[in-house]
Amino acid sequence: MLIVMEHNASEAAVEQVREAVKAMGLTAEPIPGSERTAIGVLGNQGFVDDTTIVHLPGVREVIHVSKPYKLVSRDFHPRATVVDVAGVQVGGDNDAVMMAGPCSVESEEQMMASAAAVRQAGANILRGGAFKPRTGPHTFQGLGVEGLKLLRQAGDEYSMPVVTEVMRIGQLDHVCRYADLIQIGARNMQNFDLLKEVGKLDHPVLLKRGMSATIEEFLAAAEYILAEGNQRLILCERGIRTFERATRNTLDLAVVPLIQQLSHLPIIVDPSHATGVRALVPVMAKAALVAGADGLMVEVHYNPATALCDGAQSLDPAAFTRLMTELSGLRAYLAAQP
Amino acid sequence: MLIVMEHNASEAAVEQVREAVKAMGLTAEPIPGSERTAIGVLGNQGFVDDTTIVHLPGVREVIHVSKPYKLVSRDFHPRATVVDVAGVQVGGDNDAVMMAGPCSVESEEQMMASAAAVRQAGANILRGGAFKPRTGPHTFQGLGVEGLKLLRQAGDEYSMPVVTEVMRIGQLDHVCRYADLIQIGARNMQNFDLLKEVGKLDHPVLLKRGMSATIEEFLAAAEYILAEGNQRLILCERGIRTFERATRNTLDLAVVPLIQQLSHLPIIVDPSHATGVRALVPVMAKAALVAGADGLMVEVHYNPATALCDGAQSLDPAAFTRLMTELSGLRAYLAAQP
Amino acid sequence: MLIVMEHNASEAAVEQVREAVKAMGLTAEPIPGSERTAIGVLGNQGFVDDTTIVHLPGVREVIHVSKPYKLVSRDFHPRATVVDVAGVQVGGDNDAVMMAGPCSVESEEQMMASAAAVRQAGANILRGGAFKPRTGPHTFQGLGVEGLKLLRQAGDEYSMPVVTEVMRIGQLDHVCRYADLIQIGARNMQNFDLLKEVGKLDHPVLLKRGMSATIEEFLAAAEYILAEGNQRLILCERGIRTFERATRNTLDLAVVPLIQQLSHLPIIVDPSHATGVRALVPVMAKAALVAGADGLMVEVHYNPATALCDGAQSLDPAAFTRLMTELSGLRAYLAAQP
Amino acid sequence: MLIVMEHNASEAAVEQVREAVKAMGLTAEPIPGSERTAIGVLGNQGFVDDTTIVHLPGVREVIHVSKPYKLVSRDFHPRATVVDVAGVQVGGDNDAVMMAGPCSVESEEQMMASAAAVRQAGANILRGGAFKPRTGPHTFQGLGVEGLKLLRQAGDEYSMPVVTEVMRIGQLDHVCRYADLIQIGARNMQNFDLLKEVGKLDHPVLLKRGMSATIEEFLAAAEYILAEGNQRLILCERGIRTFERATRNTLDLAVVPLIQQLSHLPIIVDPSHATGVRALVPVMAKAALVAGADGLMVEVHYNPATALCDGAQSLDPAAFTRLMTELSGLRAYLAAQP
Repeated sequence: MLIVMEHNASEAAVEQVREAVKAMGLTAEPIPGSERTAIGVLGNQGFVDDTTIVHLPGVREVIHVSKPYKLVSRDFHPRATVVDVAGVQVGGDNDAVMMAGPCSVESEEQMMASAAAVRQAGANILRGGAFKPRTGPHTFQGLGVEGLKLLRQAGDEYSMPVVTEVMRIGQLDHVCRYADLIQIGARNMQNFDLLKEVGKLDHPVLLKRGMSATIEEFLAAAEYILAEGNQRLILCERGIRTFERATRNTLDLAVVPLIQQLSHLPIIVDPSHATGVRALVPVMAKAALVAGADGLMVEVHYNPATALCDGAQSLDPAAFTRLMTELSGLRAYLAAQP
Repeated sequence: MLIVMEHNASEAAVEQVREAVKAMGLTAEPIPGSERTAIGVLGNQGFVDDTTIVHLPGVREVIHVSKPYKLVSRDFHPRATVVDVAGVQVGGDNDAVMMAGPCSVESEEQMMASAAAVRQAGANILRGGAFKPRTGPHTFQGLGVEGLKLLRQAGDEYSMPVVTEVMRIGQLDHVCRYADLIQIGARNMQNFDLLKEVGKLDHPVLLKRGMSATIEEFLAAAEYILAEGNQRLILCERGIRTFERATRNTLDLAVVPLIQQLSHLPIIVDPSHATGVRALVPVMAKAALVAGADGLMVEVHYNPATALCDGAQSLDPAAFTRLMTELSGLRAYLAAQP
Repeated sequence: MLIVMEHNASEAAVEQVREAVKAMGLTAEPIPGSERTAIGVLGNQGFVDDTTIVHLPGVREVIHVSKPYKLVSRDFHPRATVVDVAGVQVGGDNDAVMMAGPCSVESEEQMMASAAAVRQAGANILRGGAFKPRTGPHTFQGLGVEGLKLLRQAGDEYSMPVVTEVMRIGQLDHVCRYADLIQIGARNMQNFDLLKEVGKLDHPVLLKRGMSATIEEFLAAAEYILAEGNQRLILCERGIRTFERATRNTLDLAVVPLIQQLSHLPIIVDPSHATGVRALVPVMAKAALVAGADGLMVEVHYNPATALCDGAQSLDPAAFTRLMTELSGLRAYLAAQP
Repeated sequence: MLIVMEHNASEAAVEQVREAVKAMGLTAEPIPGSERTAIGVLGNQGFVDDTTIVHLPGVREVIHVSKPYKLVSRDFHPRATVVDVAGVQVGGDNDAVMMAGPCSVESEEQMMASAAAVRQAGANILRGGAFKPRTGPHTFQGLGVEGLKLLRQAGDEYSMPVVTEVMRIGQLDHVCRYADLIQIGARNMQNFDLLKEVGKLDHPVLLKRGMSATIEEFLAAAEYILAEGNQRLILCERGIRTFERATRNTLDLAVVPLIQQLSHLPIIVDPSHATGVRALVPVMAKAALVAGADGLMVEVHYNPATALCDGAQSLDPAAFTRLMTELSGLRAYLAAQP
């Protein structure tokens, strides 16, 4: 931590800061400059709460060098984490995983047809929402537990682990019973109580980046889960909110190599929510693979025209099959590189 | 709803859209233009789900004219809502309310001293957090139910209703028992299950704007609460996330007159979180009052230097007293205007 | 400047950084921490270019403590600058100035009528655009030199200094001849050649904040002008670009007290461009005054329905007169405060 | 254009809007809805200025269906434009072009060494800045005309066309004399006078997206150039400004397929400015190629440790050579796809 003093801060002010740092059990090292004094803080293990410093007279700014996460950091865990999702390995040197399926579970017919289609095209994890977060209350909110059962049935029929979103702690029992991978959605990335609860489970978790979360906040949210003991965590980039409106969100692909540098956790990409535009999904899926993503999550509906949600960004089975063929060639090409 | 077709969309494509609109029980009215055809959709009551339209061949864009909220809209409820918080009236022609107190409840001594100070300065609702949402897991997380009791005790001692944040459904019973006003924080603005639950209560609610929520999303979140029957809702602007980092957030004051135009619900402003800088709080508090806010929420700590959270943005009792004096003069001035 | 090393940076890497700092004529002071080493850099006068440091092996991050501006900084010039615009004093303890007039000069009749109206209501500087920056090429681009002459004529007739925008160096001669205050628009805030040229003049300048400029960049742009010798500079906040679309921009009012803390230059607010919505202009104008703005710039058109640009955000003379009356009362009230 | 009326707008208000539309030579077609009336506007050729409409009583919102650009639109020019840069073809089915070289021209030795290195690695256009836009005035500002000559000399020696930035109209003669491709930088994307001037030339132009420009504004800026007659335009995505600070900007790769859908102009990607982090440049360069970019622009310095600007994002010759080898394999792979 570095404490930057005002240009005209008095020696008494500097001394008071030193005392405050000492009271925290840390060491203060003043660095006098030609324009102002800065004070280095030594001895801390990880992130320091600056509350009692930042208000002191003469303090201009407190700059944190340590990050508010440690367990998720690659600094201290250089080896990539591999998460086992009911037999499918995600992360490390494993092949990029493909999670696919409809936005929401709508009916047995829809789930079975969608599962058959994505399985045949080569997907290895089946997605489907039973509890749906919707912007307004007057739209379809999901089938609930009934949806979980249909998802499980489709996964079993077509031999795929299944992933679904949990929206609150009270749903965790149900979701754990039926799903192999529990998704925390973007809107809940900082629902810290929910993070703590899934942190206590021995169940794989998929954490989506909040729509205006910095990378630091994203990793700090992940830290909540690891801090409770659950190491089986996969991160997911799904686009961030910017001023641009031609796409639903702005896909921040650079986050993939950056997070792989900062953290040992696997990271996948959801090009469907990131763009919101069906015609952009395949090309961004391929770009994500080249950016090094440990997997992809793509919305596929057997008939997008009748989808109860997100029809505009869902691929139909034919488009998904084409995409899988292209990705498979690209993967083979990438694997052959030195 | 307006459906905009591609420049070169065929007549068959236009016809297919008409059929799809008809299947929704609505009427399609093509408006041929010199560059492209647009299709007006008539007959809908409120927001229309466009899922089955937006994917059709030849459709370029679907433009929504109706908003995803109606119950919160002033269009249909021209009269301003007044929310009674244990005797304190918020909204309409009532005086701007002042909610004040520490970021978090830390101890009996701290709560009593803070309550005494804000009461004496003229605050009429006491704030204090018992459950704290913190970016990382390695910082102070609040006193929980013990904190709720201390808050209640301080409110009773100094005759002020109390407001505190609820972070999950499981805490609602406790929070309703001890608090007069239930706060939903910015990170939970789209925690739709929580919104629905507080919507079922007959208890006043304070809903903070999410840090990257549009006004439309903010009002749609409010709609969740009203849709379940609870009309006792107060909105709160607390700054949005932008590229600027010199302040913690960017206070979007124009939202106050704008929401008062769009909605009948009261709206207050939290200049403490909006700026994150103690020196900016009083001036922005005054600006918010002039902008027409129905109230303010300000962090006050009897000794910011020892605060366990948000010390940098908390006023001490002397500064808060000065602010209340200034606000009181300003209020009197504003009230005297025609 | 603080150089933060990687967790596992070798001693040789630290040594190489020390050498590089020494080669810059500065002193490096390593601060060993429990997790990583940081290196303080001493001896610099102002901002240091970090190009030769940031790439070195083992360097994780370079944190700048000095800012890329100095001449505009209040640290070194504690006294507020007052800018004389042909007799109207802007900044310091002077009354907030009111610049008003149409977005663009359209005709003699329009300028004369608008000038008469704003003068009578109490404005003291007349605005009007002769060279217009428009998003697309197929809209009205301004009257050019003819417009400058009409603006001057109206200012002379109604005894007001005039302000107008310059878009390129080649227009400077004309603009200086006819206008008392030269405006650099938001889109040109980082048109550095233009900044340098106006920096060489002895003519007051109004610099608008770029629509996605940080405060640091805004002040660094101002530094360009002062660095060339021109100290007669007024800053202007006109809203920034965020994800919100209900208003044209997001008015960042906290910038007013913040810049007054960081810089000695006067700062005014343009609520017309900041909101883009006529109904929000008066209330935000009043809020800006309370936030401490040294002046306001408001678009007024004698008949907004026929305006060739920005009609939706222009006040008509009646609304402007009402606003001036309200502002005048508010000013008197504020002036009477201790 | 669609004009949305207030819920309670009177018939007289609707009538007044019809009259105003008629006065513009267009036709108004009211579409009565159950909640409000909307009015379709027919007969316009392209974008309509809504100034005289948007202020009328009862008007809630004006929604534009036409875009503020037409000449750049693929709707009306379905065939991809190919720009010839002194023999190198950019766009259409041509191989992705590689522009490479240092951020700024520093010396003959540096330019010659850099040109030799990038040429040998396979680059086909040489970049180098002679006029530099820098955030603050106290840093290196470029060599000016001397730099242009050194760039030209290096291009001639190694048989590459050269590209360099122009910052103002007064530099155009010089830049046209020495450079084959004229770059308009992000900060000047809305320097409309400069756009018009390069629009009058018969010289290829590279237009970079402004750091907070929407796609619509980007294409409208391009429209300025085509409207003056110059069709030889290449667009360039270089990252946009968001709340994220871990990278210099956020690379918006989805813009590549999106612009190729909306416009016939070629679009290239600059991963150096988009990320600002050397380690991310190669991976994002590859992702951009897969996203369909018509070319790349990469900063390469023969010794980044001594670069006078942007050293942190520059590749050294060895890294660039590795990248070119990888890109070449990737290109061959992509070309072989059906």
